[in-house]
Amino acid sequence: MIKLSIFLTLTLLISTSTASVQDFCVADLTGPQTPSGYTCKPPANVTAEDFVFTGFRKGGNTTNIINAAVSPAFDAQFPGLNGLGLSIARLDLAPGGVIPMHTHPGASEVILVVQGSLVTGFVSSANAVYVKKLLKGDIMVYPQGLLHFQINGGGKTSVAFASFSSPNPGLQITDFALFANNLPSMLIEKTTFLDDAQVKKLKSVLGGTG
Amino acid sequence: MIKLSIFLTLTLLISTSTASVQDFCVADLTGPQTPSGYTCKPPANVTAEDFVFTGFRKGGNTTNIINAAVSPAFDAQFPGLNGLGLSIARLDLAPGGVIPMHTHPGASEVILVVQGSLVTGFVSSANAVYVKKLLKGDIMVYPQGLLHFQINGGGKTSVAFASFSSPNPGLQITDFALFANNLPSMLIEKTTFLDDAQVKKLKSVLGGTG
Amino acid sequence: MIKLSIFLTLTLLISTSTASVQDFCVADLTGPQTPSGYTCKPPANVTAEDFVFTGFRKGGNTTNIINAAVSPAFDAQFPGLNGLGLSIARLDLAPGGVIPMHTHPGASEVILVVQGSLVTGFVSSANAVYVKKLLKGDIMVYPQGLLHFQINGGGKTSVAFASFSSPNPGLQITDFALFANNLPSMLIEKTTFLDDAQVKKLKSVLGGTG
Amino acid sequence: MIKLSIFLTLTLLISTSTASVQDFCVADLTGPQTPSGYTCKPPANVTAEDFVFTGFRKGGNTTNIINAAVSPAFDAQFPGLNGLGLSIARLDLAPGGVIPMHTHPGASEVILVVQGSLVTGFVSSANAVYVKKLLKGDIMVYPQGLLHFQINGGGKTSVAFASFSSPNPGLQITDFALFANNLPSMLIEKTTFLDDAQVKKLKSVLGGTG
Amino acid sequence: MIKLSIFLTLTLLISTSTASVQDFCVADLTGPQTPSGYTCKPPANVTAEDFVFTGFRKGGNTTNIINAAVSPAFDAQFPGLNGLGLSIARLDLAPGGVIPMHTHPGASEVILVVQGSLVTGFVSSANAVYVKKLLKGDIMVYPQGLLHFQINGGGKTSVAFASFSSPNPGLQITDFALFANNLPSMLIEKTTFLDDAQVKKLKSVLGGTG
Amino acid sequence: MIKLSIFLTLTLLISTSTASVQDFCVADLTGPQTPSGYTCKPPANVTAEDFVFTGFRKGGNTTNIINAAVSPAFDAQFPGLNGLGLSIARLDLAPGGVIPMHTHPGASEVILVVQGSLVTGFVSSANAVYVKKLLKGDIMVYPQGLLHFQINGGGKTSVAFASFSSPNPGLQITDFALFANNLPSMLIEKTTFLDDAQVKKLKSVLGGTG
Repeated sequence: MIKLSIFLTLTLLISTSTASVQDFCVADLTGPQTPSGYTCKPPANVTAEDFVFTGFRKGGNTTNIINAAVSPAFDAQFPGLNGLGLSIARLDLAPGGVIPMHTHPGASEVILVVQGSLVTGFVSSANAVYVKKLLKGDIMVYPQGLLHFQINGGGKTSVAFASFSSPNPGLQITDFALFANNLPSMLIEKTTFLDDAQVKKLKSVLGGTG
Repeated sequence: MIKLSIFLTLTLLISTSTASVQDFCVADLTGPQTPSGYTCKPPANVTAEDFVFTGFRKGGNTTNIINAAVSPAFDAQFPGLNGLGLSIARLDLAPGGVIPMHTHPGASEVILVVQGSLVTGFVSSANAVYVKKLLKGDIMVYPQGLLHFQINGGGKTSVAFASFSSPNPGLQITDFALFANNLPSMLIEKTTFLDDAQVKKLKSVLGGTG
Repeated sequence: MIKLSIFLTLTLLISTSTASVQDFCVADLTGPQTPSGYTCKPPANVTAEDFVFTGFRKGGNTTNIINAAVSPAFDAQFPGLNGLGLSIARLDLAPGGVIPMHTHPGASEVILVVQGSLVTGFVSSANAVYVKKLLKGDIMVYPQGLLHFQINGGGKTSVAFASFSSPNPGLQITDFALFANNLPSMLIEKTTFLDDAQVKKLKSVLGGTG
Repeated sequence: MIKLSIFLTLTLLISTSTASVQDFCVADLTGPQTPSGYTCKPPANVTAEDFVFTGFRKGGNTTNIINAAVSPAFDAQFPGLNGLGLSIARLDLAPGGVIPMHTHPGASEVILVVQGSLVTGFVSSANAVYVKKLLKGDIMVYPQGLLHFQINGGGKTSVAFASFSSPNPGLQITDFALFANNLPSMLIEKTTFLDDAQVKKLKSVLGGTG
Repeated sequence: MIKLSIFLTLTLLISTSTASVQDFCVADLTGPQTPSGYTCKPPANVTAEDFVFTGFRKGGNTTNIINAAVSPAFDAQFPGLNGLGLSIARLDLAPGGVIPMHTHPGASEVILVVQGSLVTGFVSSANAVYVKKLLKGDIMVYPQGLLHFQINGGGKTSVAFASFSSPNPGLQITDFALFANNLPSMLIEKTTFLDDAQVKKLKSVLGGTG
Repeated sequence: MIKLSIFLTLTLLISTSTASVQDFCVADLTGPQTPSGYTCKPPANVTAEDFVFTGFRKGGNTTNIINAAVSPAFDAQFPGLNGLGLSIARLDLAPGGVIPMHTHPGASEVILVVQGSLVTGFVSSANAVYVKKLLKGDIMVYPQGLLHFQINGGGKTSVAFASFSSPNPGLQITDFALFANNLPSMLIEKTTFLDDAQVKKLKSVLGGTG
């Protein structure tokens, strides 16, 4: 009797809430984006797998010029966090590895070292420099949009995880923004005070033209 | 003459603003959702009816085990408030009726008693208890996401209206979250310290399995 | 034994969380305001009373020219909802009573009729008119910042409650903004196309100068 | 060698970021709107032209009854600023020109005079009046949703640009909201205290009915 | 010469921006809180140390009844992330350890396993259950405000880091909210359907009264 | 009679609203800052002057190495827009003048050319380049946090106004962030791939050390 009537209540509550409840919005990567993120996959098609990302079990390939790799789990890679206000990335830095000077236009970041150590820091709008060496377990916060970097000065590979205050923080590596596209050398030189030879050298290395 | 020229102005202003003006975004319930709510019904199809909800003229059926009913006017029931940052629900509690311990994951709430009285309260993250008896006309605020409840300790039916700071506040009734689905008893017991017999009893009442 | 060790855990968890937990921010009305609201009363001084407002037990005095009264429970009157994203007000309209054309610059509103009936509506940026008669239990939403009004066309006092999507929605009654201050008549006439006699008449009624 | 490996890195970083990066959301004006704005044009179709608006080279036509014109570059006219939190409009006021009393329901505004001068001001929720004469180069801020106006009291055309804190601020001109639609005269008179003759006169001028 | 004039420019830019620039707002824990967080420490007193937290080098003490520990780096423990929209916590779970069923009222969470494994999951407002076993390197997202838990079912200590979409996410452990304070047993029983004996047993274990 | 009773209503409404109404929050620059901006000057002390800024009547001094000047009206210079979600700056560029490559960490920007012309553009996170020449009256939008620049390639001084989607957008000029402080040359070189000679040359010009 009790069971029956609570079932009725439950049904009523659930029947209305099934339609309306949207605690989450797993990204439908095939649909259009909006300023607030991707449109949502129908809730009925959502499973536990949508909320789990297993791409961090191995680090990225660090056999490259920066001896480092960034593996993002932003909304495009991990649709389950669409609209939920945060994301994460794995950083692998071989000895001597560097994540070059960069910004995230859309998020603040907390970095956590889980293996090895990192020398890292950021520069504020007032051009003040905040640099520290982080050991395993240490975290540092970089306020939104400011230039920052990570260097592995130790003798073994360092691994870190970066958490972001947005599912889509963006990543603008200063050197790539300047030298890895067709931005004319003349414009680069005028707006950075860099010498022509320096600009051309880096364009050559990074594949830029113009 | 004057009339003509102002008509021209009006037409100019209106012709641009008709396209751009979107003071509201009546939900198109057939379209996809986004992290900011439903997509909008075309403004040309919107009428005054879209902004009115008449489903609260009668209370919900309280002949159930909790002797109470919750009737939501969230965005899924009342498309006109999509994107507008608030919603509302009607609560009916027969004598002895209870809205069980629950949270709204996405909103703060103000409750207003319009008939009878309620004993109600919430528990903070610091585990502090804030309980009060509300008479007709009284309001209480429950901060976002915290456990709260309402009990009609009086001799006649109480009616209250709950306002929320989101068009889609969500509703998670602790007992239903634990005992009205297939969450394995072992996991429930380990994570709530409840006895196996208690868990099984409530699963039986609420229709849970596992 | 079990009890002891959980106490230890509890203590640890609580000791850190007592300092940090701020689920709410009861307004310290004596402190400065900020763009996000008032500064917070120290949590240790907060009691259940801070979350309850009893000023709506009686309606406001409607023996005035509009035959109506608005009683707000915004953050300044109800400090407990500071920072929580919503507020509420009680409206009493005697027969023939009117809440004159007005806007809330900082919030959308849902109105709920709990006694009598109301003729109410709003005008959009596209100058479209949305008017409806609401009966007891009906709700209507007015999107943020748009002109709206309420009229009691029935034979007995109507009572309604307005919920807002901000703890500090503001209230700008068009007539008071134009005629109840020292805004020069010449400026009013130029910016509203109203006749000089009309402006002076309303300034006289509403106490304006200039 | 170096070049090759950095290319690899670049490719990896770019290949993931091409899919995920959404620094902007150029409006697809053919798609549905959402509470956060229009859906986005596919990034691959976006060009520099999407971020530029050239419609302000000439002012609007001021040969009308208000001797003024408002030319908006909101998201519907300038799709590139969809989702970016701001917009802009050009104001031209011939001598004696007036932008009538109005509000922007969805944004604060900063006005900048680039030619001539303006007498301008706003009224607060407390009915306080803030009026100033602005010379070329001066700016004034009108807080969100409050009534404000601009008058060119000088002998030559004034030009100003208004910046808004939203890509879709809305624009509600009080006179048009009251007199340029089918809002019944009786309702206008009851909610504004205006005389019947005054209401009918303005309805006649502005093309209203009812 | 060049150097001199750029110094002048620099000085001008810096002199204005030194006062205005506030990329960050390191919490002044001695000042009042606001709905947006703590007031800011004067920028001139801020050093690199303010942006680094070293409290995660060692895990919390897990010799307690839940065989687990939560160590938060929220704004109260790590003032540098005040206002920056994210925070982080370390979780240590000995074999058999459990983080009991809980919610974070103010944030979504991403958990990252860095040692061992976890069985974890959450329940939605629609009472759907999403449970998964996470291995080292795996992440799972729990949408804001929903009940979730973590269990170490493996034979060695597991370590995880939880990232939150707020500097002050809150933490409400259901059992502590119900049984570790003075919430009257009668109210608990009426609002949870738990048996009196069960309530009293848990109150006894967790130190509750009433 | 009528006048008297409306005075009463007015008084009631005003007496409550005077205390509560806070349509604006003029910055008290002597008080602490918060994540949402400065604390507010008491409303009673606010005058029309607080909402007007006259510092743009003349442009900044462009006799410097960049032949350009940026004059901000952010919240620190123009307290009236504290908390209102936007700000503005004046840009003067003599012939050949350059606003070097920079970002605003906290805002999107719309630039408006009011005299002369500008070659300007930005680079996206995907390293795509969007460059255009703007004539008088043209506007361009730079999405939040992305690198952008302005160059006056014409023969006379250009003047532009930049509007921002925040009262405190920040300004990080890449060259100043790298070369105008004590960031060690070794770190700069490792994180930018610039040659040592280039770094030292620019440090010398911009006054950097280390």
